[in-house]
Amino acid sequence: MSTAPLDDFLKFLSFPSVSADSAYKEGVRDCAAWLVGRLQAAGLDAALHPTKGNPVVVARNVHKPGRPTVLVYGHYDVQPVDPLPLWKYLPFEGHVEDGIVTARGSADNKGQILAHILGVEQALREKGELPVNVIFLIEGEEEIGSPSLAPFLEANRENFRCDGVVISDSPMIAPGVPTLTYGLRGVAAMEVSVFGPAKDLHSGMYGGAVVNPATVLARLIASLHRADGSVAVPGFYDGVQPAADWEREAWAKLPFGPEQLLAASGAPALGGEDALSVHERLWARPTAEVNGLWGGYQGEGSKTVLPAEAHAKLTFRLVPGQESAKVLAAVEAHLRAQAPKTVRIEVKPGHAGEAYVTSPITGWGAAAQAALRTAFPGKEVALTREGGSIPIVGDFRRILGVDTLLLGLCLPDCNAHSPNETFPLENLEAGIRLNRALLEEIAASAPQP
Amino acid sequence: MSTAPLDDFLKFLSFPSVSADSAYKEGVRDCAAWLVGRLQAAGLDAALHPTKGNPVVVARNVHKPGRPTVLVYGHYDVQPVDPLPLWKYLPFEGHVEDGIVTARGSADNKGQILAHILGVEQALREKGELPVNVIFLIEGEEEIGSPSLAPFLEANRENFRCDGVVISDSPMIAPGVPTLTYGLRGVAAMEVSVFGPAKDLHSGMYGGAVVNPATVLARLIASLHRADGSVAVPGFYDGVQPAADWEREAWAKLPFGPEQLLAASGAPALGGEDALSVHERLWARPTAEVNGLWGGYQGEGSKTVLPAEAHAKLTFRLVPGQESAKVLAAVEAHLRAQAPKTVRIEVKPGHAGEAYVTSPITGWGAAAQAALRTAFPGKEVALTREGGSIPIVGDFRRILGVDTLLLGLCLPDCNAHSPNETFPLENLEAGIRLNRALLEEIAASAPQP
Repeated sequence: MSTAPLDDFLKFLSFPSVSADSAYKEGVRDCAAWLVGRLQAAGLDAALHPTKGNPVVVARNVHKPGRPTVLVYGHYDVQPVDPLPLWKYLPFEGHVEDGIVTARGSADNKGQILAHILGVEQALREKGELPVNVIFLIEGEEEIGSPSLAPFLEANRENFRCDGVVISDSPMIAPGVPTLTYGLRGVAAMEVSVFGPAKDLHSGMYGGAVVNPATVLARLIASLHRADGSVAVPGFYDGVQPAADWEREAWAKLPFGPEQLLAASGAPALGGEDALSVHERLWARPTAEVNGLWGGYQGEGSKTVLPAEAHAKLTFRLVPGQESAKVLAAVEAHLRAQAPKTVRIEVKPGHAGEAYVTSPITGWGAAAQAALRTAFPGKEVALTREGGSIPIVGDFRRILGVDTLLLGLCLPDCNAHSPNETFPLENLEAGIRLNRALLEEIAASAPQP
Repeated sequence: MSTAPLDDFLKFLSFPSVSADSAYKEGVRDCAAWLVGRLQAAGLDAALHPTKGNPVVVARNVHKPGRPTVLVYGHYDVQPVDPLPLWKYLPFEGHVEDGIVTARGSADNKGQILAHILGVEQALREKGELPVNVIFLIEGEEEIGSPSLAPFLEANRENFRCDGVVISDSPMIAPGVPTLTYGLRGVAAMEVSVFGPAKDLHSGMYGGAVVNPATVLARLIASLHRADGSVAVPGFYDGVQPAADWEREAWAKLPFGPEQLLAASGAPALGGEDALSVHERLWARPTAEVNGLWGGYQGEGSKTVLPAEAHAKLTFRLVPGQESAKVLAAVEAHLRAQAPKTVRIEVKPGHAGEAYVTSPITGWGAAAQAALRTAFPGKEVALTREGGSIPIVGDFRRILGVDTLLLGLCLPDCNAHSPNETFPLENLEAGIRLNRALLEEIAASAPQP
């Protein structure tokens, strides 16, 4: 690889653009400013757009009518570096060894978004123009939940009219395996509280005649699942779209299965709806999870209280066909129906976002697959969904009315959000190839005017 | 009442004998020293006995062969006073108003043990001797779990040979109702931990294929009870001695039932084994209670983790016929049988003590009833058990081989362990009468040599 891309990468990484900590305000600001300059140097019209939080960097080529418009999303902010002592190298100095760059933000998301910028720059230098209209939208608050992005898009809807979104901000399914992620689960959160006696009671003096809220909470949580691992809430599966046969076949061939999942989790064994493949369980089936629970005495030794209250934080992962509001209502109705009259139940709904799926085999999906084959020659493309939720993908669909292709370029063990985050230089190169090929393929797949 | 008992009471209360806080070491020491002097002034042979912790005060009259020996147990240490701002009067100044003394330790236990001391003093002054052999055993560590008492008794077994123990350190079942408590539940504690993945996982990336330890914990806790409120652990009820018919009849007449219990608890409704009376549920049936549980994220908002572990502190209240070791073993076996192979279970047994029951209608029990009628003229004697556990009662049976009569003299709303602890002067008077009548009745009930 030429030295220029590495120089750019190390410069980009040198800004401590930590959005979660206001002590890094300057790092965020300088990074955004550098990025605008770099996009301009690449031949794009680029500017900084203020928000209530950190500014959004927007850049575009000369748009021409009749061509598809591709929005490339990324973020220039990074996770905090704590705990610093666990880093082998200084996190903002970009240590390079054996083709691997170690630095905070190398994978998430600087290396991945830089590949797209460099791809566009290369094409503009070589050909003088791009085959499609491109908009770069690079925000500075992704690591704190993108609070300003949706309002910004809503206020500037017209400026971001496009035909689809491309994001490289996720891992490949296995090292060296080009990955197209075409679906995400949604999420719906709630907190359940069970209130019993007016205060913590003596478990000897009252136990047996006053019902224990912690026991009730446990029974409510237990009532969420059947013995086969499925969710027992009436109506929970209403509308759930099953995985397609071609998906099941594709997933079965992935270099990612029970063995890799078991190793990555460190659990004694896998579980859940055992009758289904792990891919289907993770990507195409909704879940009910306890994210936290608490009540009564948690200190050392013993305190014989019958606690006055107990609480649980629950989230439900959703799949296409479900609606988060309906799921939350169904769960609340179920919990209230299960709860005895000896306690009072409080249910507080939390954040929610719908599941997402697009086609990986038609239109831009097919174009993305072709581009991935070009960028990673001789490799089989993995078609995957993700079990997690990426709210901005829902925002793009809701606000801009478009689908998103997720083309992850970092490794599964890239340590995003952890010490010693890495990104291989060969993936930066592959990302440049991917960007070029993708824009060509999208141009080619568009109906001619 | 003469001024002398009140003067003694206020003096006794003026010592800040808080055993839980070493800042009050002097208050504890001065209180014990004063007590020895007061017992000597009453005409007893009294001395301070060092232990590894606070000293034990022991006093006795001139023992004569052929008479029963009564051990009167009490404690001179008190609970901490926090939160001080909630006290209406200074906690160690003994505020007297309308015949009610407000002070830390007034009910628990200074007023109650002082009544016995003053009763003995009165009898010695009037008659020159007591009708029985008496040993006062007044410790200074009851509020921190009596760590030194059992070792002290074991090391000095011969000196504490007696025919029975009397303790006034509990509430009457209702104001003005003389109460003989003849049974206690035992207790067995354990902590259950459920371990799943090696670390907290992303609930989207792993949820559905990795089993959630918090869910498993909830299912384990839920498996402890049947829908009818009974405990579902196989073998749990083995050996349980049912309440006797006369007990059920006596309990049904008590001025304490569902209404009082509901009001005292502040719960929306009572529960448990609804087919049984609340008295039976509280006093004659074993229970399984969650004293605390925790796992995963408990902070504000949401964190979508699949927690690596979850924990619960459980205690089981036991009734006569059960053995704490067998119950703990049965519960552990049940939990392990319920737990799926997708998690690892750890069970840590905690403290345990056996249930206790003695006869309230024969021997000393009958004598105690007669004495209570004398001390509270015209009042029906309440025969009760207690749902809680008093480990020293088990120690007395185990180490000295004798039973204990619990003759509570404080009011149900005396605020023991809380701010504004109170004890009525009329109960101090009644306690003096009770002590005198009890020793007479015990003497009369003893087989003549």
